[in-house]
Amino acid sequence: MQNFNFYNPTEIFFGENQIAEITKAIPKNAKVIVIYGGGSIKNNGIYEQVSLALSDFSWGEFSGIEPNPTYQTCMQAVSKIKQEGYDFILAVGGGSVIDGSKFIAAAANFVGEPWDILSKGAEVTSALPIGVVLTLPATGSESNSFSVVSNSETQDKLPFASVEVQPKFAVLDPQVMKTLPQRQLTNGVVDAFVHTMEQYLTYSVDAKVQDRFAEGLLMTLMEEGPKLISEDVDYKVRANVMWSATMALNGLIGAGVPQDWTTHMIGHEITAVYGLDHAQTLAVILPRVMAEQQALKRDKLLQYAERVLGLDITDEDSAISSAIARTEQFFQSVNMKTRLSDYGIGEDAVDKITHQLERHGMTALGEQQAVTLDKSSKIIRASL
Amino acid sequence: MQNFNFYNPTEIFFGENQIAEITKAIPKNAKVIVIYGGGSIKNNGIYEQVSLALSDFSWGEFSGIEPNPTYQTCMQAVSKIKQEGYDFILAVGGGSVIDGSKFIAAAANFVGEPWDILSKGAEVTSALPIGVVLTLPATGSESNSFSVVSNSETQDKLPFASVEVQPKFAVLDPQVMKTLPQRQLTNGVVDAFVHTMEQYLTYSVDAKVQDRFAEGLLMTLMEEGPKLISEDVDYKVRANVMWSATMALNGLIGAGVPQDWTTHMIGHEITAVYGLDHAQTLAVILPRVMAEQQALKRDKLLQYAERVLGLDITDEDSAISSAIARTEQFFQSVNMKTRLSDYGIGEDAVDKITHQLERHGMTALGEQQAVTLDKSSKIIRASL
Repeated sequence: MQNFNFYNPTEIFFGENQIAEITKAIPKNAKVIVIYGGGSIKNNGIYEQVSLALSDFSWGEFSGIEPNPTYQTCMQAVSKIKQEGYDFILAVGGGSVIDGSKFIAAAANFVGEPWDILSKGAEVTSALPIGVVLTLPATGSESNSFSVVSNSETQDKLPFASVEVQPKFAVLDPQVMKTLPQRQLTNGVVDAFVHTMEQYLTYSVDAKVQDRFAEGLLMTLMEEGPKLISEDVDYKVRANVMWSATMALNGLIGAGVPQDWTTHMIGHEITAVYGLDHAQTLAVILPRVMAEQQALKRDKLLQYAERVLGLDITDEDSAISSAIARTEQFFQSVNMKTRLSDYGIGEDAVDKITHQLERHGMTALGEQQAVTLDKSSKIIRASL
Repeated sequence: MQNFNFYNPTEIFFGENQIAEITKAIPKNAKVIVIYGGGSIKNNGIYEQVSLALSDFSWGEFSGIEPNPTYQTCMQAVSKIKQEGYDFILAVGGGSVIDGSKFIAAAANFVGEPWDILSKGAEVTSALPIGVVLTLPATGSESNSFSVVSNSETQDKLPFASVEVQPKFAVLDPQVMKTLPQRQLTNGVVDAFVHTMEQYLTYSVDAKVQDRFAEGLLMTLMEEGPKLISEDVDYKVRANVMWSATMALNGLIGAGVPQDWTTHMIGHEITAVYGLDHAQTLAVILPRVMAEQQALKRDKLLQYAERVLGLDITDEDSAISSAIARTEQFFQSVNMKTRLSDYGIGEDAVDKITHQLERHGMTALGEQQAVTLDKSSKIIRASL
């Protein structure tokens, strides 16, 4: 096991009818800005529950955070915050709203040009406090310090991280999933699954707890994912998926182990250029990363085949091939496509995406920096 | 899954040579009191590392916290703190030192008679901040809000809990385990194992993540425990046991699931009356609780048999018997005795311990309050 620091101070309120808890969780006398997306929360009752819980607070709102939140939209929210004097952000939404809110929280207190936080890694030393009402389990952003923001003018999609923007609390009520469209549910399951894989499928450092926790999340998502988009979905299924997605990226399974974010990095560029949903890019890329990097990931691929998939590993090579195929089949079982061509993307993607990676300095990805630009090109080509 | 709140703000510094991190983790200008036990830290280099890390702080020390820390000793530390004006506690030790430090932290700020915190559940609304350097992985106390303190005059051993006493940080360096006597290592493995079981072996609420995390800890402790006390123990084994013990009682695996602390409650009384080590009592009692409550715990016993022990469960009754026997054998495999008679305790324990339980209001233990005093008597008798 590698040395690590683990610190996750987000308070979780999990379960039915927990949205009312925000009344107690937000500091008294806070002036709250509710930040949300396209307005679906006005149709599914969540906006109403939040309004009711905020009735003793002074509050306003900012809507219109888009999927893959843009710097441009976030900066509009920052202006509103500065003009109207808000001192607490309540993010009501999924990963995009939360990621956008994190950038807004940091930018509102930033001295200088906030774009530098993303483009130059300028340090975030202060941010407005954030609370979250999660409406879509997927990214884990509700209890971590990461954020990804896009620039609509430059096709950049860039991450930043700071403990300053880690939410103070997050409300996870699985009931909010009832009204989600199937596409969003599928995206969430795939995103959580790939987050787990990217912290698991590297090389062994004999971190038994982290490995088994990751395997537990993978098994749970494989069992519950297909149920989530079927007719007989119930509260239990939603609860298991929601908690899995949070645990998949709250720092715990990645503590003390190598990580490989190749799939996310290539996927970000595909979204930036072609506008695919984030999770759609992951399902296309992950199986090709597994195949391309199978020599370096051999032991973990076998462990995954045996413990998560229950495969017979007498013939190791065929077990690995089966494990990769089964992963792709799992994505398909939740109605997720697994080829770039399924989205009408062709040959020209190879050079375009490779160029984007080069432009962003992503020239040696993976837990052993083995995914050079050449390897990335191969991975993209294999994904067509 | 049941509704739950989960909040664990303890920052973990895990790994080799992490003790030096306390320099950064303790607030500047804090006046620090180092609290420890019988002085073994002076022989194994830990005291020296702590002293070095504290060289820029004003600090003092209080030693002599005993195994099963007593109210009487803790109150001596409180006097010293008040006289000398310390405002930060650094607990350097195992569960007893940390539990004692938590009570000291609360008592130092308590208005009224501190014994009421334990005897009457008086609310703790303020406490001195605590940091921890863990020297013995076992209780999980380094990253939770629980504490158990004994009264040497009245034979009471009583718990309290408050978020106010949750450590701000905990340093977990597996190297500290090198010099621990085998008895303490064994105690730690058994304590962590039983903590996990008490949050797992109840009835199913279809909490798949929590179940699989618990199973991962049980498997890891069963694999690594015997290695820990063998000749070929290495850093990896120590690290896996240490992290398992912390994860076993930091609130995570118990979030949203029923819990059964019967074994701990009966065990506490045995320690109070007969002075057995805490873990010694657990190894004696747990197998009898499993047997006595097997009808109520049937589904989970089968799940444990299959997933953790890999048993064939074609014949369910024999699988359950085997699972209970295998649990007892695991304790024996780490050189832990599993009978009260192994400690020279006889028949009279049945009435004595039952009487203690009655005196402390423990008349309906277990996840379904099914362990009445009569059932507790049977469990104690079966443990002889």
